[in-house]
Amino acid sequence: MSVTSDPPLLLSRLRSGLPDDALLTDPADLAAHSRDTAPFSECGTPAVVVRPRTAEQVEHVMRTAYELEVPVVPQGARTGLAGAANAVDGCVVLSTTAMDRILSVDPANRLVRCEPGVTTRRLAEAVAEHGLTYPPDPASWESCTIGGNIATGAGGICCVKYGVTADYVLGLDLVLPDGRRMRTGRDTAKGVAGYDLTRLVVGSEGTLAVVVGATLALRPARPPALSLLARFPTLTAAGDAVAAIIAAGHTPSALELLDRATTQAVVDLGTHPLMRAAGAATLIVESDGAAPSADLTAMELLCKEAGADEVTASATAEEAREIIEARRLVTPALGARMASRGGGLTAFIEDVAVPRTELPRLIGLIEGIADHHRLEVFTLGHAGDGNLHPTVVFDASDPDELTRARAAYDDIMAAGLALGGTTTGEHGIGTLKREWLERELGPVSLELQRGLKRLFDPKNLLNPGKVVSA
Amino acid sequence: MSVTSDPPLLLSRLRSGLPDDALLTDPADLAAHSRDTAPFSECGTPAVVVRPRTAEQVEHVMRTAYELEVPVVPQGARTGLAGAANAVDGCVVLSTTAMDRILSVDPANRLVRCEPGVTTRRLAEAVAEHGLTYPPDPASWESCTIGGNIATGAGGICCVKYGVTADYVLGLDLVLPDGRRMRTGRDTAKGVAGYDLTRLVVGSEGTLAVVVGATLALRPARPPALSLLARFPTLTAAGDAVAAIIAAGHTPSALELLDRATTQAVVDLGTHPLMRAAGAATLIVESDGAAPSADLTAMELLCKEAGADEVTASATAEEAREIIEARRLVTPALGARMASRGGGLTAFIEDVAVPRTELPRLIGLIEGIADHHRLEVFTLGHAGDGNLHPTVVFDASDPDELTRARAAYDDIMAAGLALGGTTTGEHGIGTLKREWLERELGPVSLELQRGLKRLFDPKNLLNPGKVVSA
Repeated sequence: MSVTSDPPLLLSRLRSGLPDDALLTDPADLAAHSRDTAPFSECGTPAVVVRPRTAEQVEHVMRTAYELEVPVVPQGARTGLAGAANAVDGCVVLSTTAMDRILSVDPANRLVRCEPGVTTRRLAEAVAEHGLTYPPDPASWESCTIGGNIATGAGGICCVKYGVTADYVLGLDLVLPDGRRMRTGRDTAKGVAGYDLTRLVVGSEGTLAVVVGATLALRPARPPALSLLARFPTLTAAGDAVAAIIAAGHTPSALELLDRATTQAVVDLGTHPLMRAAGAATLIVESDGAAPSADLTAMELLCKEAGADEVTASATAEEAREIIEARRLVTPALGARMASRGGGLTAFIEDVAVPRTELPRLIGLIEGIADHHRLEVFTLGHAGDGNLHPTVVFDASDPDELTRARAAYDDIMAAGLALGGTTTGEHGIGTLKREWLERELGPVSLELQRGLKRLFDPKNLLNPGKVVSA
Repeated sequence: MSVTSDPPLLLSRLRSGLPDDALLTDPADLAAHSRDTAPFSECGTPAVVVRPRTAEQVEHVMRTAYELEVPVVPQGARTGLAGAANAVDGCVVLSTTAMDRILSVDPANRLVRCEPGVTTRRLAEAVAEHGLTYPPDPASWESCTIGGNIATGAGGICCVKYGVTADYVLGLDLVLPDGRRMRTGRDTAKGVAGYDLTRLVVGSEGTLAVVVGATLALRPARPPALSLLARFPTLTAAGDAVAAIIAAGHTPSALELLDRATTQAVVDLGTHPLMRAAGAATLIVESDGAAPSADLTAMELLCKEAGADEVTASATAEEAREIIEARRLVTPALGARMASRGGGLTAFIEDVAVPRTELPRLIGLIEGIADHHRLEVFTLGHAGDGNLHPTVVFDASDPDELTRARAAYDDIMAAGLALGGTTTGEHGIGTLKREWLERELGPVSLELQRGLKRLFDPKNLLNPGKVVSA
């Protein structure tokens, strides 16, 4: 029996194991929990939103949904960009935001144990008090949750040196779709006992199990950083600088690129003293190595040798922060640009990654795609990782522009794959890229991916329709 | 039909797609390929050893074995310590050692593509010519293969700073048990397209698929290292030093511990100028940071504060190598100790890992276990990772001593688990620890692990009996 046709039974059964304030059924609450931040992505209306406070309450929710055969969609802060947290009609939205305790910070073992609902920012601040750092820094780090970071395998700016969320997850406390509880991984620095279920769950977008606890590895606090800002006359020159920096053996803690349109948007914002004119590309490079000044001098030279018109290097931590601020201004700059067109526009943030030597070619192809479809595309991203976020700005209320935006999105994916890349460097598949996943993986891998989903979730109840169709 | 009862058919079918010299059927060859380096582990006699040179030949072998329902056991250099490469009766041993090409070294993308049979040493030397390093350094690195490293998820001494094999595998080229070919992962620095099949195959001991190619991440060449050797009067003092070094934010590139018995064996060897007297423990610490001299001075102080009797720090790279040599002398020292007891002894190298703060307690428990069973146990290992290799030396021809050795092995596993650890930090499960895996994982995880095996290998033909029973 499916209770999607009998919500009162679902609610009464859920209520029997949850505190009253853990169930939300107000239509406004249901609407607020219907989707994440991805445009274009299908979503439905949940029957109920539950906000359990304990793992045992999650077990109750999962057992209930399993017995009644109701789909469950786990959610963190809904800052995801692929529709992976979008509700399906009649589902239980399981928000883990109320499970937000940091259970222990263990400096001698360099790890932290926490619940999934703690925000990345709060976790980072808590471990900083112990002289430690949790490096992953997705753009939404102030509000996104560790559970969401684990579900999406979140990245960020410092990945080029410090790696992604997956590199920090030592062990997980999970509730399976049928309500059974399970631990994966370990509290030790190393371990190879059995197949790596931890890594399988990281990035699985809540389709295999619900994360109710995590053991995360930490690092010593990052040393003070210095940075530089370089303006290039051509994309090729900027790409050459990126390749030269890596080939020379540097490992910058940020290596970000803004294309001409993105640079111009920041210049037009008019608030940043160093962003006065747009070349074909801007590079922002940060070093937090043991000798950042020497690093930066060497990288400055490499930028100039590659053809940079203008390079400004920081001499102090404050100047370094000012340079990094140029990167953080991209979001308000694009917001201002969209507002200047009268508001009501949609920004569709893409996430393609290629071998870093293919970056100039990818950006060139993206510029051609923008021209072809008569759209504004702002390309920025993690050049050191070959991971770009071309952002298509369009008026979704204009059917023709909407069609062109979707076509541009498809063309950008195709360009990434054609250059030996992937359709998602860090944002994930969700509902948005399921068809592209099939194209990227091919039939044999896809068959195994579907088999994995069936193994963990034979009834296809946990976040159905995300990553792979069952 | 199973061809284990019809070897001529198996051989003729295999021959149809392999060069003549790729099939070995001489009994001496079969015996030589019957097992890896693990004592106590069951093994059988293969029907044939094949040494394909191409992925297409591997596909042929797998298709043939699948149709005839003959088990296939993949092998690298057979340096493994858990019996994961042990033959089963009538199987095809698939040695990947003839697939030993380094396909490309790509400095700008910091990656290398290679076949599975290349040795870790040759790969490391090849990338060093480009100013790069492939860090994983298992003890057998001179002879073990990349395919074997991937299958076992191999570790080593520098893991404490640089991580394990799994951290370097970006993508894999695989042949599935039914002979189909598949790629996992990517050539990009980041990527989250679908469930992480790459990481699932790493450490799966050749039970899910045969690795026929790998894309591995590289790092810039390691800077010159300095090191120190410290002697401690008590285990607690050595453990305190390890905890203090980590808690102070150091990330040494080696942090190795020898217990009293192991230190004494090296002292008795008489060839190392710094190893003149054994305390309760010896620590060997290496730094290859940007300022190794300052690092080392700070760590020397922490060792002294923790109670070290004597600390010798290197001032030059040559002195540093001499200190590290004390660690490398452990193997010959144990060999000499065993020879002094008349030869014919077996060394059983254990591999337990605990949170690093539990190290002193684990070593204390191991000493108690050695006393209880009246056995010599030499404990050494990667203290920085909490990963120890207690080595039980015994006379396997003495039934009583053999029984005591097996009991000691069980007691050491139990001690590791009781301290919140794992039964294998880096050597793997193989056939040796299958029962312990069940105890470590519990029933729910084990059910999923078995399901994973069935998903990849429904006929249970690929390295059957390793990791999990089907």
